[in-house]
Amino acid sequence: MPANIDTLCINTIRTLSMDAVQKANSGHPGTAMALAPPAYTLWRDVLNYDPANPLWPNRDRFVLSIGHASMLLYSLIYLAGVRDVRDGKVVDAPSLTVKDIEQFRQLDSRTPGHPEYHHTAGVETTTGPLGQGCGNSVGMAMAEKWLAARFNKPEFKLFDYHVYTFCGDGDNMEGVSSEAASVAGHLKLGNLTWIYDSNRISIEGDTHITFTENVHKRFEAYGWHVLELRDANDTGDFRRLLEEAKAETSRPTLIIVHSIIGWGSPHKAGTADAHGSPLGVEEIRETKKFYGWPEDKSFYVPDGVPEHFQAGIATRGAAASKAWGELFAAYRKEYPELAAQLDSIFAGRLPEGWDKDIATFPADAKGIASRASSAKVLNQVAANYPWMIGGSADLSPSTKTHMTFEGAGDFQPPQWGATYGGRNLHFGVREHVMGSICNGLALAGLRPYCSGFLIFSDYMKPPIRLSALMKLPVLYIFTHDSIGVGEDGPTHQPIEQLAQLRATPGVTLIRPSDANEVAEAWRTLIPLTDRPSVLVLSRQNLPTICRKTYAPASGLAKGAYVLADADGKPDVILMATGSEVGLVVKAYEQLKAEGVKARVVSMPSWDLFEAQPQSYRDSVLPRDVTARVAVEQAAQLGWDRYVGLDGATIVMHTFGASAPAEQLEVKFGFTVDAVVAEARKQLARKAS
Amino acid sequence: MPANIDTLCINTIRTLSMDAVQKANSGHPGTAMALAPPAYTLWRDVLNYDPANPLWPNRDRFVLSIGHASMLLYSLIYLAGVRDVRDGKVVDAPSLTVKDIEQFRQLDSRTPGHPEYHHTAGVETTTGPLGQGCGNSVGMAMAEKWLAARFNKPEFKLFDYHVYTFCGDGDNMEGVSSEAASVAGHLKLGNLTWIYDSNRISIEGDTHITFTENVHKRFEAYGWHVLELRDANDTGDFRRLLEEAKAETSRPTLIIVHSIIGWGSPHKAGTADAHGSPLGVEEIRETKKFYGWPEDKSFYVPDGVPEHFQAGIATRGAAASKAWGELFAAYRKEYPELAAQLDSIFAGRLPEGWDKDIATFPADAKGIASRASSAKVLNQVAANYPWMIGGSADLSPSTKTHMTFEGAGDFQPPQWGATYGGRNLHFGVREHVMGSICNGLALAGLRPYCSGFLIFSDYMKPPIRLSALMKLPVLYIFTHDSIGVGEDGPTHQPIEQLAQLRATPGVTLIRPSDANEVAEAWRTLIPLTDRPSVLVLSRQNLPTICRKTYAPASGLAKGAYVLADADGKPDVILMATGSEVGLVVKAYEQLKAEGVKARVVSMPSWDLFEAQPQSYRDSVLPRDVTARVAVEQAAQLGWDRYVGLDGATIVMHTFGASAPAEQLEVKFGFTVDAVVAEARKQLARKAS
Repeated sequence: MPANIDTLCINTIRTLSMDAVQKANSGHPGTAMALAPPAYTLWRDVLNYDPANPLWPNRDRFVLSIGHASMLLYSLIYLAGVRDVRDGKVVDAPSLTVKDIEQFRQLDSRTPGHPEYHHTAGVETTTGPLGQGCGNSVGMAMAEKWLAARFNKPEFKLFDYHVYTFCGDGDNMEGVSSEAASVAGHLKLGNLTWIYDSNRISIEGDTHITFTENVHKRFEAYGWHVLELRDANDTGDFRRLLEEAKAETSRPTLIIVHSIIGWGSPHKAGTADAHGSPLGVEEIRETKKFYGWPEDKSFYVPDGVPEHFQAGIATRGAAASKAWGELFAAYRKEYPELAAQLDSIFAGRLPEGWDKDIATFPADAKGIASRASSAKVLNQVAANYPWMIGGSADLSPSTKTHMTFEGAGDFQPPQWGATYGGRNLHFGVREHVMGSICNGLALAGLRPYCSGFLIFSDYMKPPIRLSALMKLPVLYIFTHDSIGVGEDGPTHQPIEQLAQLRATPGVTLIRPSDANEVAEAWRTLIPLTDRPSVLVLSRQNLPTICRKTYAPASGLAKGAYVLADADGKPDVILMATGSEVGLVVKAYEQLKAEGVKARVVSMPSWDLFEAQPQSYRDSVLPRDVTARVAVEQAAQLGWDRYVGLDGATIVMHTFGASAPAEQLEVKFGFTVDAVVAEARKQLARKAS
Repeated sequence: MPANIDTLCINTIRTLSMDAVQKANSGHPGTAMALAPPAYTLWRDVLNYDPANPLWPNRDRFVLSIGHASMLLYSLIYLAGVRDVRDGKVVDAPSLTVKDIEQFRQLDSRTPGHPEYHHTAGVETTTGPLGQGCGNSVGMAMAEKWLAARFNKPEFKLFDYHVYTFCGDGDNMEGVSSEAASVAGHLKLGNLTWIYDSNRISIEGDTHITFTENVHKRFEAYGWHVLELRDANDTGDFRRLLEEAKAETSRPTLIIVHSIIGWGSPHKAGTADAHGSPLGVEEIRETKKFYGWPEDKSFYVPDGVPEHFQAGIATRGAAASKAWGELFAAYRKEYPELAAQLDSIFAGRLPEGWDKDIATFPADAKGIASRASSAKVLNQVAANYPWMIGGSADLSPSTKTHMTFEGAGDFQPPQWGATYGGRNLHFGVREHVMGSICNGLALAGLRPYCSGFLIFSDYMKPPIRLSALMKLPVLYIFTHDSIGVGEDGPTHQPIEQLAQLRATPGVTLIRPSDANEVAEAWRTLIPLTDRPSVLVLSRQNLPTICRKTYAPASGLAKGAYVLADADGKPDVILMATGSEVGLVVKAYEQLKAEGVKARVVSMPSWDLFEAQPQSYRDSVLPRDVTARVAVEQAAQLGWDRYVGLDGATIVMHTFGASAPAEQLEVKFGFTVDAVVAEARKQLARKAS
């Protein structure tokens, strides 16, 4: 056994990781073995983190973008003695024990294959899909800058946390991390350090087969401060580089760590074999021998190891979080209103009166595009929701998501002559990292939104999925939602995007039909703080439905509601979402004039509707009314649930086309006549 | 009017673009105005392209990644006199006339909002979604390298085309273009030149708000040759830079063009206002005045302009394509077999005997993972399909898509000690550009496949969609297709991905249930040369179904088929895809033993099934058998089409979890008992 306690700690991380992967017979040992020294150094000696309070708002953030190396993080959480969090409260029990580590990758264990936010205290974000942690960390660093600009006062430096990200070759090959690095460089995020594990090994072998660019120079080109650690095992040098990184406050820092994957494994070190499979019993034995470790002990933690680890991080963190608590108490006296805001931010609560200015819209046959009515409501809400921030992937003049009220401002670094306290974000043409950044902002307690054309949700599906998996209240505002886009043509006209987002678990999607449904959509989705929402809006004008003639828009909260009805039981149900609701209302009026008993169901949100009791759902769509027509300018997939085996759908069966929208409506059959004809066919089928 | 004929040509491009956008009242004039000089120079003086034969295999490729500037391309196609292509043949009629340009963005016109491949002769790829053209161009350049390595002979330089891409700030902010640039640099694609329009203007305003990186240095870091054109109007300097680009054969070249968007427009030049809206009648008048153009003429083409344009490109191209034709004729005599292969490549035909070695698999209860059986079939097919090339986003040991037969080899530049003639591609952890590159390879006539985990189809949705829109036969092989992934957990377990891909128009998706369905899937999808296919495969073993006891796997070709049946009319139908078919077969056997008349329907491909006549579909799923149970480890969306309003689905309603797959099957209800219980409930409902 090596006498050096630091080495003992490092080898504990390595052997726990090897043993856990071996026992699970699945997982990734090599990276944890290679990165144990820098990870240990960062956590024990540098990270400003109180294991007794993993929710401390000013804690440094540690993001493991290489989520497959989860055992590295679990070992750190265990050794640091991070306390558990239950129902949002810290409790006096460890987040992880050795027993939990022995249950690595087992059913319902606290140590799943990839780190999961909310599942294991100490995990700051769910990672695994490569590059996402990089994007999240940019969002976290932006949040710190924003919080500091908005809440710090000369005597009260409430926010000065640093964000550390471990990333790898895989992360750095992904486009989303390039986008993230470009944004971080532009924003001069001096509070962000990426530690890049350059082990030159990927699953297909040496990275030389595909990744020969000069990463050092590339990051310099983004405006980053770039350092290199020649030997991952040199903890002293790494400590020095971390100091340099912290000292550089006007640029993000990349530390390139030259490491050997599976370090210490006599036959697998430096090879792809050490990446994604257990080392094997015999190889583990030999590796432990190399480490000077008891060869026959598994999950072995030498005496004094957790204590030594915690004598660093916990001692330092406890003092820092205590001092911060005192600072915040004094701050509360000087700035009670700001402190109250922070209480809400930390607790994930909405500000009072956030909805007090939401407008209602008078009936109007010409109407207004839902992107435009949403712009109004967004500003009405955001003005009363001080920590709502957001922006667009270079489309805000089109998505109309710019906050225009006084004091909203633009988020920019002082070096560009602005302030980090601005609320309008400019993501550039970088949809993918826009989503990943919003996840990071939400993880830091802010209420983010982002926007783009619905078609470009394709570019950012991975972070949307992660919002849902993490239950983060990110608001995605997607406009230009159908062939209503018109002349831009099929590359810009969504078809399958509604189905994609509806199929994703844990996402609430709302496609409102007019300005008042837009207002109700905002009223409904803002309180949903346990999930992402997708608001789907039109480019083109939509008539504002007369709510005296038809049912009130408040029905939107239930996902679907009877908008117009027959006297007595209807013979046919017409249903639609968004821009097609106006169309079916016209068809309804024509059918009604012809004496047909029709019902119109507006269905802005399938998922909210599915969450209603069966009785409500049956009242809206009575089971014995099987003559049904659904109309939506999108793929058919999913509509059969509401029209049944015999109902009809007027939907898009192909891609769209480039032409004025009104002509496309005719070309693709979205006309009053077509809806009426389908309704008549349904009635005839029923009668026959 | 300026006397200089070159200036006349350039201003013709500018004014046609302005006029077309104005008439359409929609479109993007500014970039076409700015880039008219370099575009003119490239096409008239450099591009090796025969307008009389836009299908000439060795033509230089021009990719307009900034697809919104479509009028630039339409103007060039018109001025060059590119001939039209109908049913795959060149005809003696122009691809575009001034009349077509006047119909810009109108219904069924030849000049849609964004350039569409197959729709307008001369358009090499469909662009619009930013960054995609960059990726496509890398694929086209790779294809040239591959064709040259495989087919060129000392005396026969059949392939030496160059690929030119116009890209912009938006392209260069997108992660996919970073991935593309990294790949191109690694592969040392000296036959690729990107012309980057650095106009510093994006939709939200000056790019200074978000894009301040040093693009020049970044591309140097990728290993590119980087040049700068200080003034977009300096055609002489640009010609010189194009020569330098061509002369540099061991690195791709980036030419950074400093331009002023909307050049010449007195009030809108250099502003975002010139980007995406018509200039306005008065502004156009003033701009024309500035150009020395007749202010009141629209769609005006001065005498001699097309002639002068064609005196460059057409004269040069005709000579070159004629010489090439003679060369190929001589080549055919020397290398008749290779020439015959090229005939097939150019015509998009399959090689004879491509399917002759496809195996059948004996029944086997233990079975084989469908990724593994597919690996066998892939190799059996690829060995007889010489221009099938492909690879993975750093997952080939897991997706098992490596071609292992003799002579397959790896595609690498000679500088890395290999050859461009290899057929195994290494995309690195870059899923997004993998798809874009495959589109480029397919556009060049090769038959590409790519592979990854199904979950990561999320990272590459945009190119999948473009494959479908362009009807390109790219084969996407996605493995690890469900919670069967097991321990890697919810970040790696697809849920909504099947629905996403099924909802996308023009995609054939096949999720085979066992090794013989895998073989039939390959047999079915390879002849589908008018669309992308998605092959969805399991990580885990699947029993090889006994085809003597049950129906033959050839039923797969119809999308769904009766695999096991009752004597006489069934009382209940059990349906499933992929790994769940084995499960429902077991449930069927149990029900049968209990005297229940059940039918099993294997449904590997919904879209192929939907393409069958109603009579066949009704024979598989008789309308009067409403007791139905569908089982799939994926989102529910879409299944109601087959189970109806009253049927049952056993599907995933949430994200998955990290645990051994067998335990997840129990946790999420995918057991024989659960299927039998649902079937019984269905029978009871029917009886009541």
